[in-house]
Amino acid sequence: MRRVAIVGAGITKFGVRQATFRDLAAEAAKSLFDSVKGAVKPQDIDGIVVSTVMPERNAFQSHISSVIAETVGVKPTSISARVEHMCASGNVAIRLASAAIATGMAELVLVLGVEKLNTPVAAETFLNMMCGIDREWEGAYGLTAPPTFALAAQAHMRKYGTTPEQLAAVTIKNRRHAANNPYAQWPTPIDLAKYNSAKPITSPFKLFDCSAITDGAAAVILAPEDRARDLTDKPVWILGSGQAITNFNLANAPEGRYEDWPALRKAAASAYGSAGITADDVDFAEVHDCFTIAEVIATEELGFCEKGAGGEFVASGQSDYGGKVVINPRGGLIGCGHPLGATGVAQAAENFWQLRGEAGPRQVPDAKIGLAHTNSGMPEHTIVIYGRD
Amino acid sequence: MRRVAIVGAGITKFGVRQATFRDLAAEAAKSLFDSVKGAVKPQDIDGIVVSTVMPERNAFQSHISSVIAETVGVKPTSISARVEHMCASGNVAIRLASAAIATGMAELVLVLGVEKLNTPVAAETFLNMMCGIDREWEGAYGLTAPPTFALAAQAHMRKYGTTPEQLAAVTIKNRRHAANNPYAQWPTPIDLAKYNSAKPITSPFKLFDCSAITDGAAAVILAPEDRARDLTDKPVWILGSGQAITNFNLANAPEGRYEDWPALRKAAASAYGSAGITADDVDFAEVHDCFTIAEVIATEELGFCEKGAGGEFVASGQSDYGGKVVINPRGGLIGCGHPLGATGVAQAAENFWQLRGEAGPRQVPDAKIGLAHTNSGMPEHTIVIYGRD
Repeated sequence: MRRVAIVGAGITKFGVRQATFRDLAAEAAKSLFDSVKGAVKPQDIDGIVVSTVMPERNAFQSHISSVIAETVGVKPTSISARVEHMCASGNVAIRLASAAIATGMAELVLVLGVEKLNTPVAAETFLNMMCGIDREWEGAYGLTAPPTFALAAQAHMRKYGTTPEQLAAVTIKNRRHAANNPYAQWPTPIDLAKYNSAKPITSPFKLFDCSAITDGAAAVILAPEDRARDLTDKPVWILGSGQAITNFNLANAPEGRYEDWPALRKAAASAYGSAGITADDVDFAEVHDCFTIAEVIATEELGFCEKGAGGEFVASGQSDYGGKVVINPRGGLIGCGHPLGATGVAQAAENFWQLRGEAGPRQVPDAKIGLAHTNSGMPEHTIVIYGRD
Repeated sequence: MRRVAIVGAGITKFGVRQATFRDLAAEAAKSLFDSVKGAVKPQDIDGIVVSTVMPERNAFQSHISSVIAETVGVKPTSISARVEHMCASGNVAIRLASAAIATGMAELVLVLGVEKLNTPVAAETFLNMMCGIDREWEGAYGLTAPPTFALAAQAHMRKYGTTPEQLAAVTIKNRRHAANNPYAQWPTPIDLAKYNSAKPITSPFKLFDCSAITDGAAAVILAPEDRARDLTDKPVWILGSGQAITNFNLANAPEGRYEDWPALRKAAASAYGSAGITADDVDFAEVHDCFTIAEVIATEELGFCEKGAGGEFVASGQSDYGGKVVINPRGGLIGCGHPLGATGVAQAAENFWQLRGEAGPRQVPDAKIGLAHTNSGMPEHTIVIYGRD
């Protein structure tokens, strides 16, 4: 079985973009192909996997991988697929594309994540987001993402004593990191006073506890070992991965608890096991901070600190530069925004740049192993682990 | 690398169903799990790949693999993904799931294809189908599937002398086959007089040249060799597969021609090559007859007859029982209907039953090798080849 590496990466500016779904994909692909300086051209690519969640609603377009392949100049001769797993679509796409390469089914595969969420009518944008919720059992009663994660925050605060200031520390750290990322939606730091002055969303969340509804795209090229070594002197390897889901509907949460995420522990065990590493080996982690509490809990379940100590971990700087592990060096979802299908691929691109030492002012010194984690809801987790030679 | 087999299959009645998207998935899963008689239970399954195209439009639901996993009682611990590739989604899902198993990423994977296309309002049903077309460059000008394939039919008739009676032979054969398939949408034969009396759709197609807008679901379980041998004494192996796409927009057709499908020749070469067989080894083929001409051209490009001879091949009975290769023993899309994401999985299920000798009145005698082919447009082809011990 063949090892698989990333050999190139590209990204668009994230934000509320005056660009169509197709424009965004083209922009990410151009960024990618420009960056590899002719080592790989669109006509060299034999496979494409597109990660996107809801273009059927926001762009009135399905049949996605063919739309995107033609847009970016790729003619697939091995695999072509669109992969969707809500917020985790990007990491799922990378896992499946890498499996196809490992088996010999494909050689050079473009994995492109893209989402155009903002429509001209805000009410339509918000309504469309509801198709990511269990429509019949939850959405119909008004449940959306912020109150879902607020349940976890309330339970975590009650059980472990996590404080509002510790939640704020996630936002302040990630916005500070995003200030070093020109592609972030929010590349400006904020302080505690500004965090505290923001409008309440759903207790305990204020505005800056929440990631945004964002347009954007990202792209990477995956290759088997022999091709990767030909194409670059600094391939970034996929070392391992994992995925686990305990439930979908909140009513089926294990033991009815929201503050513990056993699915993430399981996914992490699979990922660390397949990579042959432990949490202690991870130099930086792209962690799915759709809301502040999500980073706090993920920090615990990924094994970076004891269960319940996630708030203290971030507040004491252990997840910042100079700490135990740098969490969300690109700025996370809170700093970069969250264009659903693009997020996991953007995490892969960040791993590529960090592990090659090309992350500029946000470089994690001498990073050897990185991790990308996306949840697609509190009980659903997908992880990919990357490393350099 | 591990060989992968189908170890169980299930299906729903295809048609205009008084059932929701979720109902259809549950019905296919029940059919599957009932059929394996306890050898595999939902809780034994570690991975799920759902093939579906446009639930975001017709069911206002995304986040699909989690919806379906919970509906059918599966808690994924290896992989979970929704795969979309328009009409070829099912075969693409099977390819990616099998790659995941082959690499050891997953063990027992449920591949479930489901589509609920018919809405209570016919105009909405037809409008939603348009999101499968290139919306900006073709759909906006009124192009739909029937006139697309009619262009191929007109060109094929002009160049190769294919006749209306030869197109009719596809429908008459497939409706006769469907009469042996209780799950088909149209399990009744029709004769030439009835075919000729139908209303014109787009020249040269009349109504019965076209597959229907159908609701339905199908499911299979994939397993690696060791597990497959434990679970059944008649595993059905995935021998090989292939996919190729030359273009999406019709304006980019190679040499501007619609009657030759080089992408299908390429996909077939990959599939036969990876399976280590030739077209002559295929006993039966599930071929994507979304329109009669599609089966005619596919018969040629798959290598069952000379280029241009596809019309004569079907009219002379060479693709029927007793001929060179039985094409569409379950009745094809013309007989069964075409619930987009379910079609390729239904083809896999038919391969499973045929290769185990369990296809009842439609059994292809002593079938050893079967093929499933789906196009997702004239220039886009996906193939999976199956075999028995």
